Amino acid sequence: MTEIRFDILGIGNAMVDVTTRVEDSFLSRHDMHKGAMILVDAAAAEALYADMPPGIESSGGSAGNTCAVAAVLGARVAYLGKVADDQLGEVFAHDISTLGVHFPSARLSGGAPTARCLILVTPDGQRTMNTYLGACVTFGEDDVDEELVAAASVTYLEGYLFDPPAAQAAFRRAAAAAHRAGGQVALSLSDAFCVDRHRVAFRDLVSGHVDILFANETEITSLYEKNSFEEAAEAARAEVTLAALTRSEAGSVILRGSETVTIAAEPARVVDTTGAGDAYAAGFLTGWTAGRPLRECGRMGSVAAAEVISHYGARPEADLRAMVKRALG
Amino acid sequence: MTEIRFDILGIGNAMVDVTTRVEDSFLSRHDMHKGAMILVDAAAAEALYADMPPGIESSGGSAGNTCAVAAVLGARVAYLGKVADDQLGEVFAHDISTLGVHFPSARLSGGAPTARCLILVTPDGQRTMNTYLGACVTFGEDDVDEELVAAASVTYLEGYLFDPPAAQAAFRRAAAAAHRAGGQVALSLSDAFCVDRHRVAFRDLVSGHVDILFANETEITSLYEKNSFEEAAEAARAEVTLAALTRSEAGSVILRGSETVTIAAEPARVVDTTGAGDAYAAGFLTGWTAGRPLRECGRMGSVAAAEVISHYGARPEADLRAMVKRALG
Repeated sequence: MTEIRFDILGIGNAMVDVTTRVEDSFLSRHDMHKGAMILVDAAAAEALYADMPPGIESSGGSAGNTCAVAAVLGARVAYLGKVADDQLGEVFAHDISTLGVHFPSARLSGGAPTARCLILVTPDGQRTMNTYLGACVTFGEDDVDEELVAAASVTYLEGYLFDPPAAQAAFRRAAAAAHRAGGQVALSLSDAFCVDRHRVAFRDLVSGHVDILFANETEITSLYEKNSFEEAAEAARAEVTLAALTRSEAGSVILRGSETVTIAAEPARVVDTTGAGDAYAAGFLTGWTAGRPLRECGRMGSVAAAEVISHYGARPEADLRAMVKRALG
Repeated sequence: MTEIRFDILGIGNAMVDVTTRVEDSFLSRHDMHKGAMILVDAAAAEALYADMPPGIESSGGSAGNTCAVAAVLGARVAYLGKVADDQLGEVFAHDISTLGVHFPSARLSGGAPTARCLILVTPDGQRTMNTYLGACVTFGEDDVDEELVAAASVTYLEGYLFDPPAAQAAFRRAAAAAHRAGGQVALSLSDAFCVDRHRVAFRDLVSGHVDILFANETEITSLYEKNSFEEAAEAARAEVTLAALTRSEAGSVILRGSETVTIAAEPARVVDTTGAGDAYAAGFLTGWTAGRPLRECGRMGSVAAAEVISHYGARPEADLRAMVKRALG
C-alpha cells in the first residue's frame, strides 16, 4: 500500500494564457465560435497573435488551473504536464510551484516552445480560446510517473488531454495505475467541441475508468448525445460513481447513485469566465478529498468559481481560503 | 525641415512586468523600500522570483507605458528601446506594435534576455519594483535614430534611462537631435531614488536640454534638494519651459513662466499605482501635441492616471479615449 502524499494529482496540457479583450466582431472576422476552444498550429497562432490587441500573460491549462486553486484552498497537490525549457515554461513552473504544487515533469529541450492559449474575452465575459499545443504534444505514456499516481487520492485528468496524439495512452496508463493503488480517477470533459472530436474515446473512458465526472451542460449533453440536461444527467448517473455537473448561473447538480444534490451558484459580477469549471472542480475535490459532505464540496466549487470569474485570468486573486471558510460558516 | 510624422517619440528601458500581490511583511523580509524601484542583477532577480507568489506578465517600461497610453488616446507615437530576441521580447513588441506604436528597434541576439521588472503590489495599492535590466544595458547612442527624433514633435525620455551605462549618451544625442529639428524634449524623473543616483546628470540635463519636465512630489524635491514642494516647484519653473508636477490624490500643478494651473485628481479606487505617472504624462502630452490648453492637458493626464490605477497593470483596460472625451465635455 502506497502512502497517500497528495490529495489531487492533476494531469493536463501545461500552457501560458495570453488574455485580451476583443469585441464580438473580432470573433466573427476570424470565424470563431464563441466560448469554444480550438487548436491552432504555430503559423495560425502567430497570425492570430499579430492581429490581437495587447494582452496579459498568466499561467493556465485546465488541470493546471484546478491544481493551483486546490493548492490555494489547502489541498496537497501534484501536477504532471509538459512545458519547454524557455521563458514561458519558466513562468508556468514558477507559478504552480510557488503555490506549493509539486511539479516534477522534465522540461522539453530543443523541441517546440511552451504551449500558449490565446484567450479572447468579449464584453459579455465569455472566453474564446485558440490553443497552440507546442511542447504538450510530446506528453505521453512515459511521462506518467506511476508512483506519483499511486500516492494521490484522486488523479484528475482534463479532457483537453485527448487532443495531443500521445496523451490518450498516458491517460489510460494513469487511470489504470490509480485504480491499482486504490485511488480514484476524475475527469473533466473540458469543452463540448473537444467531446465531439473524441466522443468514442471519451465514452469508453468514462464508462470503464472514471469515478468522478465533471462537465457543464453542453459537454454532458454532447457526451451522451441527448437533447436535455436531465436525460444526459441520468446517463451520467448510471455510468459513474459521482458526477458534478455545472450549469453556469443555475449552479450545479451532484449525482451519486440515487442521491441528487442541487447547489446554487454563488453571486458574482462576471468579468471573464475563463477557468470557472477548473475552479469548480478544484473546490469540489478539495472538499471531497477532505471527506466533506457532497453539499459542502459543491459549495466550495461554487465559491471558487465565483472568485475566478470576477476578474481576468483563471487563477484566484482574492483570499479564496477565507471566502470558502465564510461560505461554509 | 523634417516632416512631423509623430506626436511623441518615447525612449526608455523596454521591459516586461511581472506583477504579484504581497503583504507588507514580504517587503520587510527582503529589505525593500516601499514604492521605490531598485536594480537587481540576474542572480538576485532569480532568487527574488523564486520567493514571489504567482504573477501575471504584461508589457511595461515607463516610457513604453506612456507610449501605449498615448497611442490609445489617439496620438501618433513611436518608441525606441531594447528587447532581446526571445519570448518576452516578442510579447513586448507585439503589445506596443498592435496599439499602433511604431517600434523599429532591432532586437538583441545572443546577449542578455529581455528586461524584467518584478512588481510587488501591497494591499495599499503601492508598487515596489525590482528591475533586471537585461538587454536594456546595451541601448546606446547608436540606437538613437536621429531621423525618427527629427520626425517627432516631442521626444520623451524616462529618467530610468540614466541607469543603464550606455544610455546617458543616447539621452544627450536624442535631446540634441530633437532641438536641431525644432522639436521639444520632455523628461520624466521616474523615481526619487533614481534622481538621487544621478542628481548631477539630471540637473545638467534639465537645465540645459529639457523643455517639459514631469515629476512627482518626492522626485522634484529630490532633484532640487528642497524641503517643500513649493520651493522645488519654483526651482523647476525657473529652469524649464513647462513643468507638470503630480501630487497623487492632491492632483497636479502645471507651471509655465508666470502661469500656474492646478488640476484636481480624478476620483479612483486604487488597486495598483503602477504606471500612474506614465499615464499622466501620456494624457498630458497627447493634449499638448494636439495644441490643447494646459488645463485640458492636465485633465487628460488625470483621467488616464485614474484609469490605470484602478486595476492591476500599467496599461489601460477601459475605453480611455471615451473617458477623456466625457471628462473634457
